[in-house]
Amino acid sequence: MPGPSPLILLVHCADRPGLVAAVTSFLARRGGNILHLDQHVDLEANVFFMRLEFDPSGLDSDADGFAEAFGKEIAKPHAMTWRLYDRRERPRLAILVSKYGHCLYDLLARVRGGELRAEVPVVISNHSDLEPVARGFGVRFAHIPNTPATRAEAEARMLAELEGEGVRTVVLARYMQVLSAGFTDRYPQRVINIHHSFLPAFAGGRPYHQAHARGVKLIGATSHYVTPDLDQGPIIEQDIARVTHRDAVADLIRKGRDLERVVLARAVWLHLERRVLAYHNKTVVFA
Amino acid sequence: MPGPSPLILLVHCADRPGLVAAVTSFLARRGGNILHLDQHVDLEANVFFMRLEFDPSGLDSDADGFAEAFGKEIAKPHAMTWRLYDRRERPRLAILVSKYGHCLYDLLARVRGGELRAEVPVVISNHSDLEPVARGFGVRFAHIPNTPATRAEAEARMLAELEGEGVRTVVLARYMQVLSAGFTDRYPQRVINIHHSFLPAFAGGRPYHQAHARGVKLIGATSHYVTPDLDQGPIIEQDIARVTHRDAVADLIRKGRDLERVVLARAVWLHLERRVLAYHNKTVVFA
Amino acid sequence: MPGPSPLILLVHCADRPGLVAAVTSFLARRGGNILHLDQHVDLEANVFFMRLEFDPSGLDSDADGFAEAFGKEIAKPHAMTWRLYDRRERPRLAILVSKYGHCLYDLLARVRGGELRAEVPVVISNHSDLEPVARGFGVRFAHIPNTPATRAEAEARMLAELEGEGVRTVVLARYMQVLSAGFTDRYPQRVINIHHSFLPAFAGGRPYHQAHARGVKLIGATSHYVTPDLDQGPIIEQDIARVTHRDAVADLIRKGRDLERVVLARAVWLHLERRVLAYHNKTVVFA
Amino acid sequence: MPGPSPLILLVHCADRPGLVAAVTSFLARRGGNILHLDQHVDLEANVFFMRLEFDPSGLDSDADGFAEAFGKEIAKPHAMTWRLYDRRERPRLAILVSKYGHCLYDLLARVRGGELRAEVPVVISNHSDLEPVARGFGVRFAHIPNTPATRAEAEARMLAELEGEGVRTVVLARYMQVLSAGFTDRYPQRVINIHHSFLPAFAGGRPYHQAHARGVKLIGATSHYVTPDLDQGPIIEQDIARVTHRDAVADLIRKGRDLERVVLARAVWLHLERRVLAYHNKTVVFA
Repeated sequence: MPGPSPLILLVHCADRPGLVAAVTSFLARRGGNILHLDQHVDLEANVFFMRLEFDPSGLDSDADGFAEAFGKEIAKPHAMTWRLYDRRERPRLAILVSKYGHCLYDLLARVRGGELRAEVPVVISNHSDLEPVARGFGVRFAHIPNTPATRAEAEARMLAELEGEGVRTVVLARYMQVLSAGFTDRYPQRVINIHHSFLPAFAGGRPYHQAHARGVKLIGATSHYVTPDLDQGPIIEQDIARVTHRDAVADLIRKGRDLERVVLARAVWLHLERRVLAYHNKTVVFA
Repeated sequence: MPGPSPLILLVHCADRPGLVAAVTSFLARRGGNILHLDQHVDLEANVFFMRLEFDPSGLDSDADGFAEAFGKEIAKPHAMTWRLYDRRERPRLAILVSKYGHCLYDLLARVRGGELRAEVPVVISNHSDLEPVARGFGVRFAHIPNTPATRAEAEARMLAELEGEGVRTVVLARYMQVLSAGFTDRYPQRVINIHHSFLPAFAGGRPYHQAHARGVKLIGATSHYVTPDLDQGPIIEQDIARVTHRDAVADLIRKGRDLERVVLARAVWLHLERRVLAYHNKTVVFA
Repeated sequence: MPGPSPLILLVHCADRPGLVAAVTSFLARRGGNILHLDQHVDLEANVFFMRLEFDPSGLDSDADGFAEAFGKEIAKPHAMTWRLYDRRERPRLAILVSKYGHCLYDLLARVRGGELRAEVPVVISNHSDLEPVARGFGVRFAHIPNTPATRAEAEARMLAELEGEGVRTVVLARYMQVLSAGFTDRYPQRVINIHHSFLPAFAGGRPYHQAHARGVKLIGATSHYVTPDLDQGPIIEQDIARVTHRDAVADLIRKGRDLERVVLARAVWLHLERRVLAYHNKTVVFA
Repeated sequence: MPGPSPLILLVHCADRPGLVAAVTSFLARRGGNILHLDQHVDLEANVFFMRLEFDPSGLDSDADGFAEAFGKEIAKPHAMTWRLYDRRERPRLAILVSKYGHCLYDLLARVRGGELRAEVPVVISNHSDLEPVARGFGVRFAHIPNTPATRAEAEARMLAELEGEGVRTVVLARYMQVLSAGFTDRYPQRVINIHHSFLPAFAGGRPYHQAHARGVKLIGATSHYVTPDLDQGPIIEQDIARVTHRDAVADLIRKGRDLERVVLARAVWLHLERRVLAYHNKTVVFA
C-alpha cells in the first residue's frame, strides 16, 4: 500500500506508431519505474490516451526537472497534451449543496477517512440547512442565496469564494441551481455533478417522478462533468438499482439516494486519482 | 417442485376494504389451499391487484365449477376483472424473428428444457436465414417477407398463421419490422418485445450506436408489451451491463446480446407464469 | 407516502388451509383496510408467514383493543406467533463500533435524515476514536474497553447501558470483539452484524486478505442476525462488488466499505420496517 | 471493427525497470503499431504482465520472422515467458458435457454466430442424451461412458479423441465426472470448468442445495481453470444473481442456469481472446 509516492503522467494526442515506445523509453532513460500503465486508442477519432503511474525514486532529477525535459523532448515533438501530477498533492475541492445532505455527509466522511485525497476548504449552499453538517466536520460553510433573478451576483460571489480558497475542483452534491456557462467555463472538466437518473433517460427535473410514471424496473444515477448544456456533459460513472411496482416515488427517492452517494463518490475518486480523460463529450476512465 | 398442479387466480379491481378477505374466505369455504398470495394496491390509482396460487386437490368441485361460482359470488359483486389458469396448460406461443438468432436459440432451448412452459408451433420470419435453427428444434418455420410497402398483406398472412395455430402469445425476438396497431390490437398485452436499450433512453433505431455516441457507462435491454406507440408499451423487465471506453459499437452489440437473451427470457417466463398484470401503461410483476 | 400511519401485523405458525381468510376476515370485520399483504409458505418446513400493513383509521377499537381481540379470537386458536407494531413508534437502537467509522457515519446520517425510523440514544465502543463522530450527531458515546480477558465485565457494563437506555435493537457496525452467548441471547434476532465477506465464503478473520489470496473476481458483504455461532446466524442481506487483479488488499478494503455501508443500512431498514422474520437459521424478508 | 487482423503478444516475467520500453521500442523499430496495451505489475510477487495487440501491416517481416527476432533480442535477455498469437487462427476446442444441455446450446450458438472464435470438432459426453444437440449444430458427438471404476480407460479414450482432433482447449460445460491429474496436466490452463456456486463458498457437490440450506440472498457461478485440486483452480470469471426466501432449490437451479451460461461463455471468450494469464493460482484478466 504505502511505498514511494508515485507520479502520474497523463497524455493524449493524435495517434501514430511509436508513442508508447517514445514515452516509456524516455522514462526508462531517466530512471523512472512504471507501476501502472493504461493506454487506449480511439480508432474512430484517431486519438491516443495514456496514463502512467511511476516510481520516481530512481529519477536522475526532481519532478520539475523531469517535467521540463519531458515537455521539450517528448511532448512537444509529438504535439501531446499532457500533465504531470504528484500523488502526494491533495487538490482543493469545494462542495456545492442545496438542502439534501446525504451526498455531503458521504463525501466529507470519505475525505476525513482518507479515502478521497483532497482538501475541502469550503461548502457553499444556496440554503442554510446544511451548515451544521459542514461545521460538524470542521469545514467552513458559505451561504450564498441563488435564484434565477440573482444568479449573476450569486455566481460572482461563489467565484470569489472559490478563487479565494484556491479551489481546483467543484463538486455539485445535489446543488439545485443551474450554473451559467460563464461559471462552468472557468472550470473545464473540473465541475462534477450527480444527476439522479440513468442519463440520457429522464434528463431535466424530477427524474424519479418521471421514472415512476414510465414504470421502469431500474432507476439510475449518473455523474458527469458539467458543460453549458444541461445534463449533457461527459459521463464519468453510472449505476442502477432495481425497483418494482411496490416502490412509490418516495421509495425511488430513498433507493436513489444510495445510488447518488456511491456514484458521485466513485466519480470524485476517479477524478482525484487522475483516472479520467474527457474528450469529444465522452470520457476515458482508466479504472 | 412436483406436488399437485396449482390453479392461478388473477384479479384486479377498484380498491376497497375486505377484498382479500372476500376472495380468501371463498377459497377456504370451497376447500382450496393457498400456496402463494401476492397482493398490491396502487394507492394513487386506487387499484387492487391479486395473484393467488392454490392447491385445488381439496376443492368441492372441479376447476370449471369453481370458476363459475367465483364469478357469480365474488367477482361480479366486486366488479373484478379476473382470470383462472390451470398451470398444467401450456400456452401456444409464436416467435417472430428477422436475422439475429441469439434470442431464438435461447428461447427454443428453454422451451425444450422445460423451463418455459409453452408450445411453440411456429417461428415466423421476414427472412429465411434462421430456418435451420427452427428446424433443428423441430419447429415449423414460416417465411413471410414484410416491408413497409407490403405490410398489410404480410400481416394478414401472419395473422392467418397465428390463428391457424391457435397462438395466444407472440414473442418478438429481435423482429425488425414495425407491426401495425391493427395487428397488435388483436393480442393486447400478449405481444412481448425485446428492445436493445434501457428504455426510455435510446428508443428507436440503432440504440447501441446512440449509446456509444453518448459515452454511457452502462448499456441496457428492455422487454415490454407492444402497443401502437413504438417502444412505449408497459415495461416487464430490464437489465444492464457495464461498458467502458474500450468497447466499440461491436462490443456493445456483443455484450448487449447477453442482456437481450436474458431479459427477454425472463419476461416470457414471467408472462407464462401469469405473474404480470398490465394497467395504465405500467406492469405489476409478482416475481 | 404520508397518509394515516399504518399498523403492522406479523404472524407465523404451522401452515394449514384458511389462515389468510381467518386473519383478513377478522380484519375486515373490525374495519381495518389492508395496504400491503405479504405471505409465504415454506412447503418443506410447513410454516406459514404473513406480514400485513393496514390502515387502522376505520377500526372499531384502538390498537390495544384490536390486539387483544386478535390474540383471543385468531392467534390463540391457530397457535400463531405474532406481534402488532405501530409504525409511528421509533425503536431504540444502540450502535456498537470499534475503530472504523464508515458504517457509523452512514447509519447516523440516515437516522438524522429520517430514512431509518429509530432513536439512537448511545454509541458504545471498545475504543475512543469515534467519540467525535457520535458527538457530531449529538449522540452520547460510551467507551467500554473490551478484551477477551475482560469480556465478562465489559459485557455486563454494556448490558447495563442497553437496559438503562431501553434499547431494543443492537447494531454491530464493524464491532471487532466477539460477543458471548450470554449477551446475544438477551437480544434474540435483535443483534444485527455486518460481516465483510459473501458468507459462507471467508468467514472468520481478515476476509479481504482471504479473498485476495484466493483471487476472486467479486467481493461481498453480509448482514445477519448474531447467534452464538460466529458468522453463522440467519442472513438478512448480501451484496457484491466486482474486483480485478489490479485490486490490492487495500483496494478490496476500500471497495468493501461501500458494500458494508449499504448492506448494513438495508438490513437495519428491513429490520426496523418489520420486514424480516427469522426461523430455522434463515430469514423471510418481505422486501 | 474489421480492419487488419492484429497479432497478440503475451508476456510475463520478473519485474524490473524498462520492460515496457524494451518491448514497445522493439515493436516500433520493426514497424508494428500498438492497438491495445495492457500491463500489470503484481507488486507483492514482483511479476510483470503484458498483453499487446498490434497491427502487423507495417512490419518489416512476417509474423514468424518477428517472433524469432523478438525471442532472441528481447525475450531471452529479459527471461520472459511469452507467446505470439494470430487473431485469425481459430483454436480447436472440445466441449465435455453430461446431461444438462443449457451451456452446450449456448456455447455452440455462440460459435456458430461468430462470437466465440473457435472450431468445435467434437462434443464428448458420458451420457448419450445430448447427442441430438451436437448433431443439430453439425458437430460430431462421442459417447464415452465414465464412472469412477472405468475412469482410466475412459480418460484414455477421451485423450485419444482430443489428440486425434488436434484440440487445444477443453471446456467442461457441466461435465459431472472428476478428471484425474493425469488428464488435466496434459492441458495446463487449458481446461475451463463452470462451477455452479460463488467459489470458495459451496465447493463440492450440490451447491444449490447447500445455498438453499444456508439461506443466502445471492447465488453465484464461477468459471476457473481446472487443476488437480477440485474446485481450487485459478478463477477466471464469477457472477451472482439475487434470490429470496421464495426460491426453492428448483428455482435456484433455474436462476443458476442463466448464470452458468453467461459466466462460462465469458470465461471461454476471455480465454480465446488471449486475455487471461494464470499464475500463483490466480489470474490476470485483461478484460
